[in-house]
Amino acid sequence: MPQENIAVIVLAAGMGTRMKSSLPKVMHRLADRPMINHLLDTVQALAPERVVTVIGPGMERVAAAVAPHPTVVQVDRLGTGHAVAQARAALANFTGTVLIVYGDTPLLGAASLSAMLDLRRSGTVPPAVVVLGFRPRDPGHYGRLLVGPAGLEAIVEYKDATPEQRTVDLCNSGVMAVEGTRLFGWIDRLSNDNAKGEYYLTDIVGLARADGLPCGFVEGDEEELLGVNSRVELAAAEAIAQTRLRHAAMEGGATLTDPASVHFAWDTRLGQDVVIGPNVVFGPGVSVGDRVEIRAFCHLEGARVAADCVIGPFARLRPGARIDEKAHIGNFVEIKNAAVEPGAKVNHLTYVGDARIGAGANIGAGTITCNYDGFDKSFTDIGAGAFIGSNSSLVAPVKIGDGAVVGAGSVITREVAAGALAVARGTQVEMSGWADRFRTRKAADKQKE
Amino acid sequence: MPQENIAVIVLAAGMGTRMKSSLPKVMHRLADRPMINHLLDTVQALAPERVVTVIGPGMERVAAAVAPHPTVVQVDRLGTGHAVAQARAALANFTGTVLIVYGDTPLLGAASLSAMLDLRRSGTVPPAVVVLGFRPRDPGHYGRLLVGPAGLEAIVEYKDATPEQRTVDLCNSGVMAVEGTRLFGWIDRLSNDNAKGEYYLTDIVGLARADGLPCGFVEGDEEELLGVNSRVELAAAEAIAQTRLRHAAMEGGATLTDPASVHFAWDTRLGQDVVIGPNVVFGPGVSVGDRVEIRAFCHLEGARVAADCVIGPFARLRPGARIDEKAHIGNFVEIKNAAVEPGAKVNHLTYVGDARIGAGANIGAGTITCNYDGFDKSFTDIGAGAFIGSNSSLVAPVKIGDGAVVGAGSVITREVAAGALAVARGTQVEMSGWADRFRTRKAADKQKE
Amino acid sequence: MPQENIAVIVLAAGMGTRMKSSLPKVMHRLADRPMINHLLDTVQALAPERVVTVIGPGMERVAAAVAPHPTVVQVDRLGTGHAVAQARAALANFTGTVLIVYGDTPLLGAASLSAMLDLRRSGTVPPAVVVLGFRPRDPGHYGRLLVGPAGLEAIVEYKDATPEQRTVDLCNSGVMAVEGTRLFGWIDRLSNDNAKGEYYLTDIVGLARADGLPCGFVEGDEEELLGVNSRVELAAAEAIAQTRLRHAAMEGGATLTDPASVHFAWDTRLGQDVVIGPNVVFGPGVSVGDRVEIRAFCHLEGARVAADCVIGPFARLRPGARIDEKAHIGNFVEIKNAAVEPGAKVNHLTYVGDARIGAGANIGAGTITCNYDGFDKSFTDIGAGAFIGSNSSLVAPVKIGDGAVVGAGSVITREVAAGALAVARGTQVEMSGWADRFRTRKAADKQKE
Repeated sequence: MPQENIAVIVLAAGMGTRMKSSLPKVMHRLADRPMINHLLDTVQALAPERVVTVIGPGMERVAAAVAPHPTVVQVDRLGTGHAVAQARAALANFTGTVLIVYGDTPLLGAASLSAMLDLRRSGTVPPAVVVLGFRPRDPGHYGRLLVGPAGLEAIVEYKDATPEQRTVDLCNSGVMAVEGTRLFGWIDRLSNDNAKGEYYLTDIVGLARADGLPCGFVEGDEEELLGVNSRVELAAAEAIAQTRLRHAAMEGGATLTDPASVHFAWDTRLGQDVVIGPNVVFGPGVSVGDRVEIRAFCHLEGARVAADCVIGPFARLRPGARIDEKAHIGNFVEIKNAAVEPGAKVNHLTYVGDARIGAGANIGAGTITCNYDGFDKSFTDIGAGAFIGSNSSLVAPVKIGDGAVVGAGSVITREVAAGALAVARGTQVEMSGWADRFRTRKAADKQKE
Repeated sequence: MPQENIAVIVLAAGMGTRMKSSLPKVMHRLADRPMINHLLDTVQALAPERVVTVIGPGMERVAAAVAPHPTVVQVDRLGTGHAVAQARAALANFTGTVLIVYGDTPLLGAASLSAMLDLRRSGTVPPAVVVLGFRPRDPGHYGRLLVGPAGLEAIVEYKDATPEQRTVDLCNSGVMAVEGTRLFGWIDRLSNDNAKGEYYLTDIVGLARADGLPCGFVEGDEEELLGVNSRVELAAAEAIAQTRLRHAAMEGGATLTDPASVHFAWDTRLGQDVVIGPNVVFGPGVSVGDRVEIRAFCHLEGARVAADCVIGPFARLRPGARIDEKAHIGNFVEIKNAAVEPGAKVNHLTYVGDARIGAGANIGAGTITCNYDGFDKSFTDIGAGAFIGSNSSLVAPVKIGDGAVVGAGSVITREVAAGALAVARGTQVEMSGWADRFRTRKAADKQKE
Repeated sequence: MPQENIAVIVLAAGMGTRMKSSLPKVMHRLADRPMINHLLDTVQALAPERVVTVIGPGMERVAAAVAPHPTVVQVDRLGTGHAVAQARAALANFTGTVLIVYGDTPLLGAASLSAMLDLRRSGTVPPAVVVLGFRPRDPGHYGRLLVGPAGLEAIVEYKDATPEQRTVDLCNSGVMAVEGTRLFGWIDRLSNDNAKGEYYLTDIVGLARADGLPCGFVEGDEEELLGVNSRVELAAAEAIAQTRLRHAAMEGGATLTDPASVHFAWDTRLGQDVVIGPNVVFGPGVSVGDRVEIRAFCHLEGARVAADCVIGPFARLRPGARIDEKAHIGNFVEIKNAAVEPGAKVNHLTYVGDARIGAGANIGAGTITCNYDGFDKSFTDIGAGAFIGSNSSLVAPVKIGDGAVVGAGSVITREVAAGALAVARGTQVEMSGWADRFRTRKAADKQKE
């Protein structure tokens, strides 16, 4: 059956009060992007025809994060069934399978969703509703899936369960795949005659069974169904996501000296025989070529590092940094929006912003590209093979020609020709004995105090 | 019963030889303050009338750490009973409950102590001695609490215990609450007729029972009773303390991307929606306002960061740093004893010491406040909206007026008027072809070598 | 029996394809040196007469790593028995015990090997073959050691084992001690009549038994027998090695605030009462004296730090850094191939390379030793008690005399006499109102855009 027949409803209207945050819960970040985007990527793998997200009032940031997918706003909070009801118009005329997922379970895997969809298409009478279950180490107060010879028979809330039912360890994750042509009919028949006065989506299993339709379930694992309702749970989810990313990096041929101390973003790309030292942080948008060594205490975001580079320790690559083959970036160096061409070296205590550093150039310790005048950013262009003496200031816009040399401590404000030497510094003058006299005076002052 | 009736004896005379340290054991630090101060804070919550600490000879540093509470010195090491005896004069005329605690169990919680005091006041004949017991995962060679119908009947040392008594898993922590009017009478009756020839405090339970008085016990948890006798145990205690601090931070509304990599001090205060990246170290005396982002690899001590600031990565705030609202402190920047007023930016490779940076000012990369002449520290005052060009040196004492601009690479030694431009740098001179000739010569030299 | 009678065969020819690396497997690093060197150090403790390593074709880097010990090349990969056969010539005329170990089990301990050798010398008829067994938590598909009244009777591969044999939890590590005069005779009798068509070394146990000779086994622990076949396993081995090193450091009298965040090299040496903050990385060749504090975020390689120094946070000591007593190295400071003499201070944002800093000298923030001209490195010599003003550039070769002062922001190119003041900077000029006019113009430009 073609995959166009899938629609997804993402429930993301929850306030997340336990987060104690002004940010909507699903916008909190996991591996450097909002939780809800992890989930959207996962469902995208199923090539759904439509994806609609149910948000709460004032959650424009969530709407922006899921765009161009549409959102609908659930104004009153009357339960999961009521939340799904808000998607009715967005799913008008849809006749395939509707997947219902939750914005705060960002680790949900595509394999479980695929298994649910496969089950929805299986057998002579495919199940009208497929629920994703799991067997947690501590079933606690989760709802239980009651399974009989005919498949899933009911979902019973913990508080309504008999002692015998409570011994069941197969729990309800809430994730469902539902026959689209029947979903909203069942939604209309939900009752809020319960302790909380809410419309529970889970009740559609009972309605389906009452209509004589079979239901089924698929088992996921507890880890992928971790729901994030507090910052402690967010940290737990982050730890799981990082463990996955670290494992994938190592399996792909990178050495992580101390994997637990490396933070990856969801989209970090690493070449082969990359070696990553302890305490390295990757923000979003980083790619690293083969045989690169990233030493301890580096911080990279939006940067491209080509093969055979050595980075760090204590290097910071900011967005727009492009480090070409065999370049070296050393300690206490910041590179922003700049190309460091093949074999160039920027090894110590340097700020390079809005610049090009030509192939094989050597930038001395303490060099600063003065790229900002308080209003505008300007460009510094350093030619191939140039040598910039230590502690120099390059006042942009400025161009240093190929092979030029800048004397240490110079402030360069005008173009330097290729092959030339430019120096801009004061003359050294010396006052004999001044330091001795100064110390004598100071020491005497101190004594008086 | 009023809380004035509590006195506390803190036993802290142990040499701690397994620490292999010249520092007294209880002075080793946990979450950035001496262990014994953790314990003092905990007992302080009970509002004791007196707190006396028993120390060893030469432990002046401990005496200073517990001041103004008094200390008494135990010269000979004749056991815990002998140690308590040293506190006799300090507790003269005291008639309430005496709590006996240990300086090397810094994680002991106030809840357990309160439960002990409550038990001391309960029943028609309150227990004369209340012992804090615990059930460790491995009871090992701990003394065992023997409990009968009348409560605690005896404490038996492991080596004196019968095989049956050794199966008891309720162990002795040593922490006790004792009727003050009887304590020293029992202490006088202790015997040192045992293998080690020491006077054991634990024997007072037997003496109380011999006097026909009931004894009781309260159960603490193993974690709070971790005793620190080696650096490995110190690290274990630190890990527990950090886990508690991290959990409290997250529950309070802060996001910790990688909680295990954040080090808190005992007194770190965080606002809401604070985001703390991986590898951040808080020393003592730091407060952080709402919505502050502290990026990876930051180190803060004695600093106040107001709301909506962005700090780091790779920033160091030292004591006396005051970062006002919406200020930015960037990478490889050190701030010491300085106010960075609202919205000011100090983003790259800068040292700011003994200074004020006015609201909205921009401090260029590589700027140094030259605050020290080898004898005295002097002040740098930078006005609101000033722009300090990159790689400048501001030789204090010096004042830069509001809105003034300092040219990149300048050494400023005199006041700059508001709205003025100051430049102090050499003139750029160029020698055509010099670099080419230099390279040719050097290459020839290399060939000769 | 004298220890000269030991020879060691190290099997290291495996390709390690699961590493996905161009580096031979045993050359991957653990605690900053190749795995195989860990193993060589361990066997060296047994004072072997000969050590021969079996490598694969093209593994010159392994040959270099084990030199001066010889290597032999196994061209075809026909099993462990075939690998051992390659060592025949190297062990010609050897009559003692041959130990066979594996280059990819770098954590193997000398105690287990000693126990094997002891067993080889024990009893009236010492065992001709001693195998190192272990009892893993999950015996899985390891070969099993079958033990009877006469000792080790056979090693059975998992796939050839009966269900009953599979319940045996004593597994084969592959490590063996074999009577040297018989080893190659048995090797000659090995058959490759098995599923893989390989010659298995393990079959010599059966041959020895068939010859009527007893065999024995010794039990090692699972941790020391961890084999490294992938980067995930490499990281696991690194974690074990680091845990051992951290534990030894603490037992030796160092405080590690957060042990899990400290990376040691195999040869790191620490004095007593050293305090190491969170996130510190030691590369090879570092020694640290008593009472040194190494604060958070430091990176040290090939450096010697004498007693009572304070290092960091955010300091980097590179090879050849020698920090003498009571010196201070502060944040964002790099020291390379330089002596910092007693009590000197280099506290902020400084690069010191190829230099001597005299006793008690003070190096201001932002100071750079300009030691490189693109071709050669030159030396900077700073006298005792000198004061280098902030943001200075010292253009090497250059000498600053004892007690001399260099003014802030100076570029020093010529020797400064002892006790003199040297200044080399531009004159400060001021243009009144320039900044105000600049802003007005820029703001107008922005409005036009």
